[in-house]
Amino acid sequence: MSQNRSSSGMSRRALLLGAALLAAFSETLLPASAQTTDPLSSWNEGAAKKAILDFVRVTTDRASPSYVAPEERIAAFDQDGTLWVEHPIYTQVVYCLERVPTVVAARPELKGVEPFKTVLSGNREAIAKLSLPDLEKILAATLTGMSVEDFEADVKKWLATARHPRWKRPYTELTYQPMLEVLRFLRDNGYKTYIVTGGGQDFVRVYAEQVYGIPPEQVVGSVGGTTFGYTKDGKPFLTKEPKLLLNDDHAGKPEGIHLMIGRRPHAAFGNSVGDRQMLEWTAAGTGTRLTMLVLHDDAAREYAYGPATGLLDGKIGTFTQALYDEASKNNWPVISMKNDWKRIFPFD
Amino acid sequence: MSQNRSSSGMSRRALLLGAALLAAFSETLLPASAQTTDPLSSWNEGAAKKAILDFVRVTTDRASPSYVAPEERIAAFDQDGTLWVEHPIYTQVVYCLERVPTVVAARPELKGVEPFKTVLSGNREAIAKLSLPDLEKILAATLTGMSVEDFEADVKKWLATARHPRWKRPYTELTYQPMLEVLRFLRDNGYKTYIVTGGGQDFVRVYAEQVYGIPPEQVVGSVGGTTFGYTKDGKPFLTKEPKLLLNDDHAGKPEGIHLMIGRRPHAAFGNSVGDRQMLEWTAAGTGTRLTMLVLHDDAAREYAYGPATGLLDGKIGTFTQALYDEASKNNWPVISMKNDWKRIFPFD
Repeated sequence: MSQNRSSSGMSRRALLLGAALLAAFSETLLPASAQTTDPLSSWNEGAAKKAILDFVRVTTDRASPSYVAPEERIAAFDQDGTLWVEHPIYTQVVYCLERVPTVVAARPELKGVEPFKTVLSGNREAIAKLSLPDLEKILAATLTGMSVEDFEADVKKWLATARHPRWKRPYTELTYQPMLEVLRFLRDNGYKTYIVTGGGQDFVRVYAEQVYGIPPEQVVGSVGGTTFGYTKDGKPFLTKEPKLLLNDDHAGKPEGIHLMIGRRPHAAFGNSVGDRQMLEWTAAGTGTRLTMLVLHDDAAREYAYGPATGLLDGKIGTFTQALYDEASKNNWPVISMKNDWKRIFPFD
Repeated sequence: MSQNRSSSGMSRRALLLGAALLAAFSETLLPASAQTTDPLSSWNEGAAKKAILDFVRVTTDRASPSYVAPEERIAAFDQDGTLWVEHPIYTQVVYCLERVPTVVAARPELKGVEPFKTVLSGNREAIAKLSLPDLEKILAATLTGMSVEDFEADVKKWLATARHPRWKRPYTELTYQPMLEVLRFLRDNGYKTYIVTGGGQDFVRVYAEQVYGIPPEQVVGSVGGTTFGYTKDGKPFLTKEPKLLLNDDHAGKPEGIHLMIGRRPHAAFGNSVGDRQMLEWTAAGTGTRLTMLVLHDDAAREYAYGPATGLLDGKIGTFTQALYDEASKNNWPVISMKNDWKRIFPFD
């Protein structure tokens, strides 16, 4: 024992020396090294980029009155239209529509029943006109009734082969490079990054870790209940049920944040009226908060919809003039894809 | 720029040298130092302690076939009876009963109505006999209807003055020292520790970080919905609603784990039939899993209930013979408070 203590004592002194040496090197030389790397290199210089850099600086500097303790550093991101492409239609809706033939094969009684009949017809015009209740029937039929593992496996399989109609690439490649940089920059500064999406929590969890570096437990989304049961040989499993617990959109976003995180975010990013209450809830906290909206104003490189684009009333990612006015009034920076982003996609 | 690159190049070499030096010191000397500290010093040597040490060793050793990637390291802990005292009655129920006078003061129409009348009478015998539906009415009246911030402030205030009838100490001091060591040991080895409690999620979140080192976002519990709204001057707030979203007990525990975490735990600790499905769900995963039950068999230092204590049918923390048999059959180690724990409380 005394020999252990003695060698441990020596090691402690040696370690302290080594650590002091290392600290001296770092202090002198690391800042120069750090300056050469721009954490937001896909962003043009401007108010949006500056807002992000300033926010991180003042909330992580111990000497700043806006300093935020590491455990309180929570940042929330909408997904569709904020982190990846949402036009011409949400990726998850494409998944559900394409899954209908499999569901009908297992339940042939649905073949002649609407809205399944229309989906099976392949008539794009008719499918685009399906009502919200019809869409809900399709979501319920394609997202529930299976075990959580079977669902995960099926989504994985689909994502591997499905392609976006415009770019002919996997949906998981259609993420915004500038936003991936924001996610990483915030994490590098001690922020826990969360997805807070109107989309399905179980769907997004399948790929969020690989695509965004966000683990399943940091994905909040619309979510239904599950039911615990046993197989014939006594193995426990969970079945996805068509019982909605959280509609994580509009007012449901702050409600979902309280349910799943239990802390108010210090930063929130969105792009549509569905994100309004999340941004309001975030902005209403004490100290410095960052609330930003992505404006899709780049038809050439992505899509154009929302204020000043002539398309205000689209069903997907609605960004109304009222939301734009609220943002202006409250100094929420609006990110112009056209002007603020040097490039859009990682593959650009 | 070229000067920056050059000094950054120098710093990198210097840093690498320093890091190599440090690593050499650490490798030679740190293990001896580590051996002198027992991470589970409040545990007696025995099968229970060995099970925890073995589990951490094989799941964190890269060379082990049971190695678990850091991001998959999830451990789930029941709270009442597993991390802190649950007798003679759950702490949260005491809170709710003691809050009744405040609720009745605000809503005088409840004064003459059962079960509030009985609670106000102070007749302990009559209160102990309240039915489950009566208790639910009390929980709904005392846990909902206020903003999430008002609730948090009220619980904090109560915890500061409330005392356990036996030890005359704050409830937050009645945690089990050996379990605090398990929490820390798992975290030191890269595990994310979660509370998965039948108790109220919002209630436990108030003190979990301070008491267990577990942040709010890692507390899963029984939880109701909230409603987003605005004050007269436009400030957003969330109101706690009497609408149960998750009854996080029995089958609700694995359901809650899927809802809130989205990964199957590699370790789970409980102490009653309410934890059975969580342990089954955990044990059914691939690889090495750790599933343990705390047995309260120490009337002198804490309480005695459950198998071999003569008290099997208590309402609080029921540990049936069937659960004991299931644990034996599946080799789930049972922790004897009497034999496995050197001391019970941090203040011992």
